[in-house]
Amino acid sequence: MKPTRIASLLALTLPLAAHADEGMWTFDTPPLTALASQYKFKPDASWLEGLRLAAVNLGGASASFVSKNGLVLTNHHVALGCVQDLSDAAHDFVKKGFSAATLSAERRCPGLEATVLVGIEDVTARIRAASAQGSETERAAARRAEIAAIEKDCKAAPGQSCKVVTLYQGAAYHLYRSERYDDVRLVFAPEFQAAFFGGDPDNFVYPRYAYDMSLVRVYRDGKPVKPKSWLRWNDAGPTEGELLFVAGHPGRTQRLLTASQLGFLRDVTNPLRLAAYERRIKALKAFAASSPEAARRAADSIFGLENGYKSTRGAQDSLVTTDLLARKVEAEKTLRAKSAGKVEGDPWAEVDAVLAKAAPRAKADALQSFDRQGLLGIAGHLVQLAAERNKPNGERLPEYRDALLPRLTGSLTATAPYYKDLEQVLLLDRLDQATSELGADHPYTKALTGNRADGKAYLTQAIAQTKLDDPAERRRLLDGGAAAIAASSDPLIVLARALDPLVRETRHFEEDEQVAPLARAAERIEAARYAAFGSSVAPDATGTLRFSYGTARGYDWYGFTVPWKTTVAGLFDRSSSFDGKTPFDLAPKWKAAQKKLDPATPMDYVLTADIVGGNSGSPVVNRQGELVGLIFDGNPSSLANYYVYGDRTERALAVHPKLITEGLDKVYGAKAVLRELRGR
Amino acid sequence: MKPTRIASLLALTLPLAAHADEGMWTFDTPPLTALASQYKFKPDASWLEGLRLAAVNLGGASASFVSKNGLVLTNHHVALGCVQDLSDAAHDFVKKGFSAATLSAERRCPGLEATVLVGIEDVTARIRAASAQGSETERAAARRAEIAAIEKDCKAAPGQSCKVVTLYQGAAYHLYRSERYDDVRLVFAPEFQAAFFGGDPDNFVYPRYAYDMSLVRVYRDGKPVKPKSWLRWNDAGPTEGELLFVAGHPGRTQRLLTASQLGFLRDVTNPLRLAAYERRIKALKAFAASSPEAARRAADSIFGLENGYKSTRGAQDSLVTTDLLARKVEAEKTLRAKSAGKVEGDPWAEVDAVLAKAAPRAKADALQSFDRQGLLGIAGHLVQLAAERNKPNGERLPEYRDALLPRLTGSLTATAPYYKDLEQVLLLDRLDQATSELGADHPYTKALTGNRADGKAYLTQAIAQTKLDDPAERRRLLDGGAAAIAASSDPLIVLARALDPLVRETRHFEEDEQVAPLARAAERIEAARYAAFGSSVAPDATGTLRFSYGTARGYDWYGFTVPWKTTVAGLFDRSSSFDGKTPFDLAPKWKAAQKKLDPATPMDYVLTADIVGGNSGSPVVNRQGELVGLIFDGNPSSLANYYVYGDRTERALAVHPKLITEGLDKVYGAKAVLRELRGR
Repeated sequence: MKPTRIASLLALTLPLAAHADEGMWTFDTPPLTALASQYKFKPDASWLEGLRLAAVNLGGASASFVSKNGLVLTNHHVALGCVQDLSDAAHDFVKKGFSAATLSAERRCPGLEATVLVGIEDVTARIRAASAQGSETERAAARRAEIAAIEKDCKAAPGQSCKVVTLYQGAAYHLYRSERYDDVRLVFAPEFQAAFFGGDPDNFVYPRYAYDMSLVRVYRDGKPVKPKSWLRWNDAGPTEGELLFVAGHPGRTQRLLTASQLGFLRDVTNPLRLAAYERRIKALKAFAASSPEAARRAADSIFGLENGYKSTRGAQDSLVTTDLLARKVEAEKTLRAKSAGKVEGDPWAEVDAVLAKAAPRAKADALQSFDRQGLLGIAGHLVQLAAERNKPNGERLPEYRDALLPRLTGSLTATAPYYKDLEQVLLLDRLDQATSELGADHPYTKALTGNRADGKAYLTQAIAQTKLDDPAERRRLLDGGAAAIAASSDPLIVLARALDPLVRETRHFEEDEQVAPLARAAERIEAARYAAFGSSVAPDATGTLRFSYGTARGYDWYGFTVPWKTTVAGLFDRSSSFDGKTPFDLAPKWKAAQKKLDPATPMDYVLTADIVGGNSGSPVVNRQGELVGLIFDGNPSSLANYYVYGDRTERALAVHPKLITEGLDKVYGAKAVLRELRGR
Repeated sequence: MKPTRIASLLALTLPLAAHADEGMWTFDTPPLTALASQYKFKPDASWLEGLRLAAVNLGGASASFVSKNGLVLTNHHVALGCVQDLSDAAHDFVKKGFSAATLSAERRCPGLEATVLVGIEDVTARIRAASAQGSETERAAARRAEIAAIEKDCKAAPGQSCKVVTLYQGAAYHLYRSERYDDVRLVFAPEFQAAFFGGDPDNFVYPRYAYDMSLVRVYRDGKPVKPKSWLRWNDAGPTEGELLFVAGHPGRTQRLLTASQLGFLRDVTNPLRLAAYERRIKALKAFAASSPEAARRAADSIFGLENGYKSTRGAQDSLVTTDLLARKVEAEKTLRAKSAGKVEGDPWAEVDAVLAKAAPRAKADALQSFDRQGLLGIAGHLVQLAAERNKPNGERLPEYRDALLPRLTGSLTATAPYYKDLEQVLLLDRLDQATSELGADHPYTKALTGNRADGKAYLTQAIAQTKLDDPAERRRLLDGGAAAIAASSDPLIVLARALDPLVRETRHFEEDEQVAPLARAAERIEAARYAAFGSSVAPDATGTLRFSYGTARGYDWYGFTVPWKTTVAGLFDRSSSFDGKTPFDLAPKWKAAQKKLDPATPMDYVLTADIVGGNSGSPVVNRQGELVGLIFDGNPSSLANYYVYGDRTERALAVHPKLITEGLDKVYGAKAVLRELRGR
């Protein structure tokens, strides 16, 4: 056991080079050389296109078409927001699960949108030409304007949208054209306890025994869509060591950051985020403890926050307890030595200067944004959108560009429920945070309390009196534009108007004094890296479609030999091992089905593919392009993937296809959907 | 997950104080205060006596009486040597298991002896008085003489033996009187693969799924003994968090060593041991690969060596990769500061001087001993015993004192088989080691080769021609004494005579220039520790009977929440998870019985009790003194127990009593012994 640990420690001291199986690749620049040399596999254009067109972006997470009738497979935790939105006190689909036996029983997910990437175009030259001159601020403005213009020029077909995506931290820009579907309906979801067996202790952990899947269906014009591509189901799943591919939407990696930027994350950004997660979780858990209905209302928020906390915690630990940062410093020294005299200016020093400006205001900037999940977030969007809309497209804050508005307005007017008791808890905790972190006299705190001595009473009353929980009122304010916003006396609109200047100040600081100069510096650092080491490095993930690859393979966890897969017997073992105590209690339907299930049925498995948050719901396919797994998590080591992929114990976690069909068959009796998955 | 890891790192920086549940206690000085305050439990003298008299020393390992008819429960790996000795090419009980349906089918284990500790007497004052004067060498001789005299004076009843044991590194001496039984018979042993499921990868690891038990019976005068005390069986086992006790024979801890002694272990002793294990394992595995019969012959040797390697590796890693040594240095600084001016001389400096002498000759000393397992070891004993016997008891090398002779002569004349092909492999590897570590011209290497140029041929011939594999020949040489030894032309006796002066030189260096001065220094260091911190520290383990205590409790393993117990479902999960590949293949009988077994049956569990190697086979009892478990291993953290007990993730591993009876019932159909265990 320990020898392996020592071997790992030694491996850690190797230089930061591209590793086997590293990279979240764009579909237009696949790592064909590496695949051919390592795995003797040469995917052709149609293979890649088939996978790309079957990959679905579902509300920012990942999914895939798995039938010719628009059936989409994703994780339970990806669809959880929808399941929660469709539930009420009398129908708790989170707790009990949901299964539509017919198309007509499928229920639309409020505000949930699906997109499919249908075209990629390199627009780097155009943006660079347009933003070559002037001061930093002028260049940033010119870049924004050109991006907006390119998106406008894109001539999307009806139902499509266009968006310019930034790669290599601004060293490249691509125009992505996507098919948009705003009618997504819930087909099947298991009980929360089956999907999330083991709860927070087992989250980001393996061995694992989760049935973390659900099915939705994409509609257009009231009918299931016929996707251009969908994945054939293969119950057999992978074999140990088999080459596998993952297509999905990894959120945001930071592998190309400088050492000082990683240091900033470690010392400033992550501690602030962790503290905010901790206090928010604490507040919500206290609320959830007050009644079963409160627990139900807070369930998906707590899940999301705990998930975010654990993920950030893992990433932060990789910075604090490993030699990652030390290796980064060494790698950077090497790069700077190799690039001496060949780089314009000193981009590393420029990065340091940007960070120096950000540090003293980091706490305020972290607070001076609208929490996008709650009613105050809705109010903030309504207030800002009314103002931004009147500006030329190219001069708006990026999130209000024309290309992005259909999605935004869709979500602002969706029928998902808001609960005022929950909203109040979140808002009061935000006030607590502002008071303790910034002080009662800080402009943000004062604005948040309407300049009242009793800010708590003010916010409580604001939540009580707001009508923004009514979608019709939101629609009215949206349609009424700047005039309606100015005239509104809704207390949350009033509050959002008061906060708006502060939020904008933070946004402009970010755009003009962070994003823009960092992009300029990154451009030169990336050019230097390219000159020194070639192009074997994938761009950082940015939430856009990527694919990664790897093999199903176990690993050594500090002396424990971890198998490449788990089985149904293990689910029952793990539950009994904790005497069935929460969160290791079995979902009742699984308990009841125990004798019907073959204990050797594969459950979850691990693969070396390079993933991060956002990959949840990604399909795993084999060389034949068949679906052989469903990504739902990563192991603890994979949390360092945000900063580095080490080819050691990092693993992606997938649900085995056989488990999915066995569950649909023997646990849930969902025969119709099972037939559809099997293409019959 | 990671938060806990950070918490552990912080915990590591705490000073080295006695921890909850720390200590391998002698039965005459139980930690009553700690038990009362922590657990509100006050075992009385009869409770302690009941446990002590049920505890059995089985060939140096641990076991316990579990029936009124002398049935003894221990681990499969403790009885493995016997199972191997009773096997031959046609009857492989290691592979197939062994089950005696009647008393007459029980088979005597060659050379295996059981003892029970029946009396303890403090003889510190007598030894200290006798060895107070003279030089270091004179004092050591006086101490040896007095120990021999005390053992002689002990007036053991027939079938008893007496031995002086050293505690607190020579700060105390106790006279232990034991009942000896030299007729131990094998009753039941499962297949090796059931006992050692998971093989070397899972050894010293948890979660674990091992049926590591076997049963022997102790006879005297051809009849099963009626023990004074035996443990009642409790199928229910423990509950999570319940207070539990472990009685057994922990081998040798080194918690009271100085920092420089630990450094010596890290830098000199352990690396030498690990290298020797590695080369021996490699040689034996090559031999085992040559034929199935060779594999069978080498099985228990490989098991023992791999076990020793992994244990030493874990202990060494605790010195290399943790801050254990740094903490020891700090603790020692504190102790020395507190003791300034109150200690005679500078015992720490004396320790350093002893180590300085040992370092340059460590390699030679490690080789200059007889390997006690093989035929050359037999020859060495015969040669030395013939010489030592003619000396007064008090002047002999300690291992040849009268009190120890019955056991030694029993093992020298036992009928256990020796395999010349295996013996040759071991001897040639020893020659390789001597040649590469000491050089061909070193006196030891020259003696080992009989001064021949072709040492390999010489040793090969010696093994081929020796008759020492015949117990009758060994008996003849034993009875013939010095004259027979001198007259013998058996090539291994000739070789042992040639090696003897070198082995003796090493032994005398150890006794006179290591053990004795270290004991003198330890005495004063322990006195200083006592003055500074009181008597809450147990003596280091020395292979004598001890008890420890703790609770059944899971732990966090680098983010993985480890349950307090495993279940039968987990055995099948783990096997399927590796696709049934060796060493995760199921023993055929367990595979066949799968449907008969309740998957929720508890299998193994962990407890916080303080154990080390030698505790294997120890009974776990509850407050009622009922048998609720069988110690068989420790988790990786527990390997640091040799040097420190940290009260963090260290755990002892036990087989659950319900697993044992379920297996006897449903897998093996061993009904008679099952009834006996249940006291019916």
